[in-house]
Amino acid sequence: MDVAEFRRRGKEMVDYIADYLENIEQRPVYPDVEPGYLRNLIPSEAPVEPEDYNDIIKDVERVIMPGITHWHSPHFYAYFAAASSYPAMLADMLCGAIGCIGFSWAASPACTELETVMLDWLGKMLKLPECFIAGTSGRGGGVIQGTASEATLIALLAARCKVINRMRASNPQLSESEIFSKLVSYTSIYSHSSVERAALIGGVTMKKVSTDKNFAVRGETLKKMIEEDKAAGLIPFFVCATLGTTPSCAFDRITELGPICNEENIWMHVDAAYAGSAFICPEFRPLLNGIETHSLITHLWVRVCEEVKNRADLIGAFNVDPLYLKHENQESGLVTDYRHWQIPLGRRFRSLKMWFVFRTYGIQGLQTYIRKHVSLAKEFEKMVLADENFEICAEVIMGLVCFRLKGSNEINQKLLERITKLREIHLVPCQLEERFILRFAICARTTELRHIQRAWSHIKKLAYEILQESSHCLKG
Amino acid sequence: MDVAEFRRRGKEMVDYIADYLENIEQRPVYPDVEPGYLRNLIPSEAPVEPEDYNDIIKDVERVIMPGITHWHSPHFYAYFAAASSYPAMLADMLCGAIGCIGFSWAASPACTELETVMLDWLGKMLKLPECFIAGTSGRGGGVIQGTASEATLIALLAARCKVINRMRASNPQLSESEIFSKLVSYTSIYSHSSVERAALIGGVTMKKVSTDKNFAVRGETLKKMIEEDKAAGLIPFFVCATLGTTPSCAFDRITELGPICNEENIWMHVDAAYAGSAFICPEFRPLLNGIETHSLITHLWVRVCEEVKNRADLIGAFNVDPLYLKHENQESGLVTDYRHWQIPLGRRFRSLKMWFVFRTYGIQGLQTYIRKHVSLAKEFEKMVLADENFEICAEVIMGLVCFRLKGSNEINQKLLERITKLREIHLVPCQLEERFILRFAICARTTELRHIQRAWSHIKKLAYEILQESSHCLKG
Repeated sequence: MDVAEFRRRGKEMVDYIADYLENIEQRPVYPDVEPGYLRNLIPSEAPVEPEDYNDIIKDVERVIMPGITHWHSPHFYAYFAAASSYPAMLADMLCGAIGCIGFSWAASPACTELETVMLDWLGKMLKLPECFIAGTSGRGGGVIQGTASEATLIALLAARCKVINRMRASNPQLSESEIFSKLVSYTSIYSHSSVERAALIGGVTMKKVSTDKNFAVRGETLKKMIEEDKAAGLIPFFVCATLGTTPSCAFDRITELGPICNEENIWMHVDAAYAGSAFICPEFRPLLNGIETHSLITHLWVRVCEEVKNRADLIGAFNVDPLYLKHENQESGLVTDYRHWQIPLGRRFRSLKMWFVFRTYGIQGLQTYIRKHVSLAKEFEKMVLADENFEICAEVIMGLVCFRLKGSNEINQKLLERITKLREIHLVPCQLEERFILRFAICARTTELRHIQRAWSHIKKLAYEILQESSHCLKG
Repeated sequence: MDVAEFRRRGKEMVDYIADYLENIEQRPVYPDVEPGYLRNLIPSEAPVEPEDYNDIIKDVERVIMPGITHWHSPHFYAYFAAASSYPAMLADMLCGAIGCIGFSWAASPACTELETVMLDWLGKMLKLPECFIAGTSGRGGGVIQGTASEATLIALLAARCKVINRMRASNPQLSESEIFSKLVSYTSIYSHSSVERAALIGGVTMKKVSTDKNFAVRGETLKKMIEEDKAAGLIPFFVCATLGTTPSCAFDRITELGPICNEENIWMHVDAAYAGSAFICPEFRPLLNGIETHSLITHLWVRVCEEVKNRADLIGAFNVDPLYLKHENQESGLVTDYRHWQIPLGRRFRSLKMWFVFRTYGIQGLQTYIRKHVSLAKEFEKMVLADENFEICAEVIMGLVCFRLKGSNEINQKLLERITKLREIHLVPCQLEERFILRFAICARTTELRHIQRAWSHIKKLAYEILQESSHCLKG
């Protein structure tokens, strides 16, 4: 494919994408395929000779689209919102064309420097304390991680490194492996699966902290666990608090947890991967109060970012510097080599997306976007509350509504199965205190009131059918 | 930005990208900016109101391009080749538009299933043993990791999990932390920095194995280290061999290492992140002989992939399954949930790129591409050998030439400094046995004989100037 053909095919692709997104509502949101469907549709080996591009592009509708769960359909209410916007797609095209691997400042200075400034923009939008901002002093600062999983893992590993160094300095008789075996970390029973996974990878114990009736971790519970563990000779070193948990969007009380962590010399990491972006709205910013922490993840409906108070803590954990990655400016203290801040060496020029999106929307546009999602969730909550066959299962604070039919887990499982089977809307469940619950998350950029009204009618209709079949008493 | 504007802006972006890549030769390959240059060119906070898209796109040339190291310029000979092709860019646009997060089969079946089949295509192109292929039995199979660093880390963590389980089963009196503290892994003194970093993250000891005069690890050396360590009560569990090291593209002797690892029940991981793709050419495939290993990374000038012989070993290490990620097909054994195969939960629809590239080029086209890079390196080697002021420092097998001026490290450092300063071409150095060496890697898709001829004239001219300044004897 030469450059002339790329011009033609690229423009065709722009039109295909525009058509896809413009008409996405018409597609069933959830695919109707059986496991293994795709293998039968394409050859079992790569072609020896080049194929015609027309044949490839035709296969997108024949092979790919039947197996797609359409995350950007307004009928998609599963998991949490994934990033998507037109300016982000344009920036991503540019990122792919530049195709630099930004593991060091020298490998593409713009890639590193734009990221530093964009994370400062974000930190200021979130009204983070000054110590999180890189500015020109470069003590704090942020980094775009590939995913929230990596952000949590990096924080845990940095904390592990820090505590081992500290313990060895104060107890020279202790070996590294003795310290290692005594390390203990904490997180909510409702925190994301990636938190537990980070501990598995880091090889340290993680204890689950129970919550209050709002599914939030409280200071008292944590304090008690820490004291018991210390009495048993263990070394508490890391707490992952969540602002906006995945099951119910609960907010751990960081105003209570922060002081305990500071007192005990524990690294507190705040996972705000979903709710964090909402803190750019003044009305939601109080939820971030007490951010006396070492690091913070947030997610601006765009990308997962991590802000740190003291970059030296993060870098110290994994600095490995071969000659082929050294460059003349790295000792100057003026540059950031992001490879020390993350698991991978290579990295895309991801801050271009933030730059395009922040500027195209403006802070006001982003606030409007978030407020619309939250208000749609509130509307959906009202619909649920208006029907006495249903109950709301957690406070609706952001764009997530947890609800269920009053009744057994089985009946709610049956409801979800039927929803999934009909493929008009897509939801996933969660579990809160042994109860099977339906999660309704406002996800798509294009979701409007009419979509959630339709979704609610659909859910109600299926629920009534089930209630009647099981001769439950239909109320109202 | 509405869909109509996206159509217009998207097509403009396609043209901008085409222009950029068509004329990339005219830009200095290495940027002339000082650390911190970018911060002064843009505001210190995000705009409150939306900005005009025209202003954003104008800033790409004003703010970004002056700070770009142009990885796809034919004057770029640094590090190793990064992936770039027109069909890959088209596939990436589509990937961004679909914007699914493929952490489970249900989250987008096509995303998972195409990846499985594409990795099978790749495995067959590489003539891997049948046990690496998923096929319909699904015992082996491949996965696209974000970077080579993650691929190595995942292999090390899986090996760590496996050895701990095995040791605990056979020695119930040993605690997990006792086993942990005795674990030891091995890799070449010339393996990539990410290998050492994987051990740091995994919290295990990694020992560096010295090499023969071709910079390759030999069986005898490894065997001796393993025996000493076992005698000292340690538990050898993981070897990372490299096919195509970063400094000099050396090939560890896996025909010797494999049998030792099998005998000692050690997980052998083969890092072929650079050279692996060349094994699709029959003339290079013998370099992969002895692939009696558990896993393999390779890199097809496109993406980093990892092939495993027994997927259960990989999955066992990190299976964490909350309700919101469960789906009805996951217990069937028919589907793959790639989230268990990698560090991140979320993942892009990256196999689209492989599909587009394999089909647009065909196996023959990819072989031609690789052979061209290797033959350009051989041409460059001839030029170096023809000048007796220079020497070749490692056998030229793939697209990398290691060379230096006969003389001190200082004089070679001076040569590289001058090359970097003039910005006509871009190289990075490496170190082999205390010697400072220049690496000349064929990287760009568009590099032709005329470019390397010009690069060699340029290097020679600068070298002669330096030799004359330092009153070295200029030979020939």
